[in-house]
Amino acid sequence: MNRHEIFNQTHAFFADLLGDRCRFDTATLEEYGHDETEDILVLPQLLLVPKNVDEISLIMRYCNEKRIPVTPCGARTGLSGGAIPVENGVLVSMEKFNKILEIDENNSQVTTEPGVITQVLQNAVKEKGLFYPPDPASKGSCFIGGNVSENSGGPKAVKYGVTNEYVLNLEMVLPNGEVIWTGANVLKNATGYNLTQLVVGSEGTLGIVTKIVLKLIPHPTHNLLMLVPFFDATEACRAVAAIFNAGITPSGMEFMERDALIWTKNFMQDESVIVNERHAAHLLIEVDGFNQDILMEDCEKIMNVLEAFETDEILFAESEAQKDKLWQLRRKVGEAVKSNSVYKEEDTVVPRYYLPELLNHVKAVGNKYGFKSVCYGHAGDGNLHVNIIKGELSDDVWHNQLPIAIREIFERVVELGGTISGEHGIGLVQKPYMEIAFSEVTMNLMRGIKKVFDPNGIMNPGKIFD
Amino acid sequence: MNRHEIFNQTHAFFADLLGDRCRFDTATLEEYGHDETEDILVLPQLLLVPKNVDEISLIMRYCNEKRIPVTPCGARTGLSGGAIPVENGVLVSMEKFNKILEIDENNSQVTTEPGVITQVLQNAVKEKGLFYPPDPASKGSCFIGGNVSENSGGPKAVKYGVTNEYVLNLEMVLPNGEVIWTGANVLKNATGYNLTQLVVGSEGTLGIVTKIVLKLIPHPTHNLLMLVPFFDATEACRAVAAIFNAGITPSGMEFMERDALIWTKNFMQDESVIVNERHAAHLLIEVDGFNQDILMEDCEKIMNVLEAFETDEILFAESEAQKDKLWQLRRKVGEAVKSNSVYKEEDTVVPRYYLPELLNHVKAVGNKYGFKSVCYGHAGDGNLHVNIIKGELSDDVWHNQLPIAIREIFERVVELGGTISGEHGIGLVQKPYMEIAFSEVTMNLMRGIKKVFDPNGIMNPGKIFD
Repeated sequence: MNRHEIFNQTHAFFADLLGDRCRFDTATLEEYGHDETEDILVLPQLLLVPKNVDEISLIMRYCNEKRIPVTPCGARTGLSGGAIPVENGVLVSMEKFNKILEIDENNSQVTTEPGVITQVLQNAVKEKGLFYPPDPASKGSCFIGGNVSENSGGPKAVKYGVTNEYVLNLEMVLPNGEVIWTGANVLKNATGYNLTQLVVGSEGTLGIVTKIVLKLIPHPTHNLLMLVPFFDATEACRAVAAIFNAGITPSGMEFMERDALIWTKNFMQDESVIVNERHAAHLLIEVDGFNQDILMEDCEKIMNVLEAFETDEILFAESEAQKDKLWQLRRKVGEAVKSNSVYKEEDTVVPRYYLPELLNHVKAVGNKYGFKSVCYGHAGDGNLHVNIIKGELSDDVWHNQLPIAIREIFERVVELGGTISGEHGIGLVQKPYMEIAFSEVTMNLMRGIKKVFDPNGIMNPGKIFD
Repeated sequence: MNRHEIFNQTHAFFADLLGDRCRFDTATLEEYGHDETEDILVLPQLLLVPKNVDEISLIMRYCNEKRIPVTPCGARTGLSGGAIPVENGVLVSMEKFNKILEIDENNSQVTTEPGVITQVLQNAVKEKGLFYPPDPASKGSCFIGGNVSENSGGPKAVKYGVTNEYVLNLEMVLPNGEVIWTGANVLKNATGYNLTQLVVGSEGTLGIVTKIVLKLIPHPTHNLLMLVPFFDATEACRAVAAIFNAGITPSGMEFMERDALIWTKNFMQDESVIVNERHAAHLLIEVDGFNQDILMEDCEKIMNVLEAFETDEILFAESEAQKDKLWQLRRKVGEAVKSNSVYKEEDTVVPRYYLPELLNHVKAVGNKYGFKSVCYGHAGDGNLHVNIIKGELSDDVWHNQLPIAIREIFERVVELGGTISGEHGIGLVQKPYMEIAFSEVTMNLMRGIKKVFDPNGIMNPGKIFD
């Protein structure tokens, strides 16, 4: 059979199985062939939209037999290209897996399908006084399944941890069509290898997750938010570790370089925050808990720490509306940068005390290679998003010099005890840099694990490693 | 070569490498051939006591080539037989890896060798105001490396999580002698498969951990402790979920059945707590934090919840000495049971709301098969240690009927969403029950992963699965 015949046969099989939930019109394929990663577009041969586990199992079994690449996708808000079907094949959209199956208040757990929007899930459990903390910037549109695939973080991670700290158990379909549960619905588990934690963050390369059991915690009732302008960006980074070392654990500790905030203000036409010419960077600091007085004390302690740094007047949010506005400014930085220029985003993470060193290194590399960068991120976690701006750079520099510069940044990150992705994943675009983070021996362990789950290499091929 | 010649050759190699740190006198082998698991003793052929990574690498390379089983051991306080060299070979004691390498106050991390006693580590970081919470009952003697191997818990896990939530990065020697780092020293990581979390809890079957990087948190400054007597054990279990559902997160929530407390009082000759004839069970409840007033409020909330249950007078610890005494009573239950009778301990864990159902089921199975059980454990985590007492049972019932009874308990545990080990691991003694927790498909994934790390099957063979 030639390629065309194989395609026709495959199409016939899936059209039979899924009806109009098997699609291959160009408009659909173009819509689904990208995520939020820069400007990459690769069309799948077919888009499949299964609505239950049995259908996924049948899809997997067929594709495994015929060696057809299977790429799972969610809301396609990813930033490393994890959902792009780089080897074509079938793209399996999880959008119909959009039900919260059970909020178990008695055990503080929720069982959900992966296609539920993270914020929808958060709001649903909040109604019961429960809290699911991980909140990536895209929480209003991303799927919880994608968060599990990428081990997403967000501003709250600094106090509450990232996605993997909440995932108790996963139902998944293996590439051979078998359905397994990875663990149990318990808070502690010493029963065999931790397959749950292996699957979280595996970026859809081991199978397709179809049910997720998450731990929930009591929802904090109070929070306070402050925006602190610094005259020196490195000072702002230094202040981060100083605050933690004073024994305070903020629920948000966000860093924004001058341009990050200015560009976002412009993007959102928001004049509520003044960035004057002396402001080099801001920290957005939140504390939360169950007692307003304690939070006030925490803020006082933070301000005591900040006295050792040169800051301008601190803005305290005085209403829920103002808090929302400040958080909105922070959450929109990514989109603002995107709207401003062609760019490349690196998701560096180091132990937080080394943030100043990381920032200085990024700027030094920028000077050396002639690029401008806009940095922001979850400073409390040592997680700095480095947006490298194309601006006036030539295509030659952009395509040939930049990878070398990025390598220099990542090498320093790893020297500092850090790694090349804090929360965006490796996916497609960070793959070339994996060998900076891991030795060949370690990479081969990962490849070996992949092969155990997916001996024919059909699951999201071309991601994480070759 | 016959067995004897092979042994002589092996002995000569290791004697040359390690000098008098290679031992095979019977007294030594008998001392090291057991852990705290019931009464199992299996002698290794040689005890090796390496003192650096290079020596471990050479040991592994040699054994891998000659297909000699390698069993790593720590303080041998394990409760599932993980450190018992069931296939003989060499037992590698990590006792010389006993240095805390760096307490990084700036980043709230500690890098330690695995042979450091957990409590020693806790005390060392506490001096800097930092907290490493996981605290198994054996914390005064167990090694942190063993905690990593078994993913140990302890009373604090209910608020602070178990070992795996603190492990950021591991240096380990693979069975082929290669040395790798599993991750990075960061609080968030979306860089490839989570090998760190795969190795935590893998019970020494994937390699030997030689360095551990742990996350630390600010040490709480205050705590309050209360002991609550219940007239009905099931009621005590029901109270557990009720307290959490009131939005309180205690830092300890321990359950002790009547006999657990009485036996321990006798064992310790401690008369400080009165257990009267109507007391069926006790909850030991701790709250901790940074503000005494808030803790008092938490205690009031707990007491409000408890009003719905039939309790006797609550004992509040009034001094640090009294707190120590109460915790000591709780921590010594295991030893007390051990000193009292031949027993078998099962480490059941369920979602905590199902604790009453679990307890009732355990008692029903006991009635059916004629055994007495003493139950206690980390109720807040749904983790119930079921000690089945041999007492007057015949050897026939003990050896032939009991495994069937245990199976009935575990089957119910799994039906309730739980699993067969919360914190003790599978090791040797729980291996026959793994198929209750996992399907054959899942077990084969675990076996496949094992093979990726250890193709020749030399690492701690005979543990977790066959």
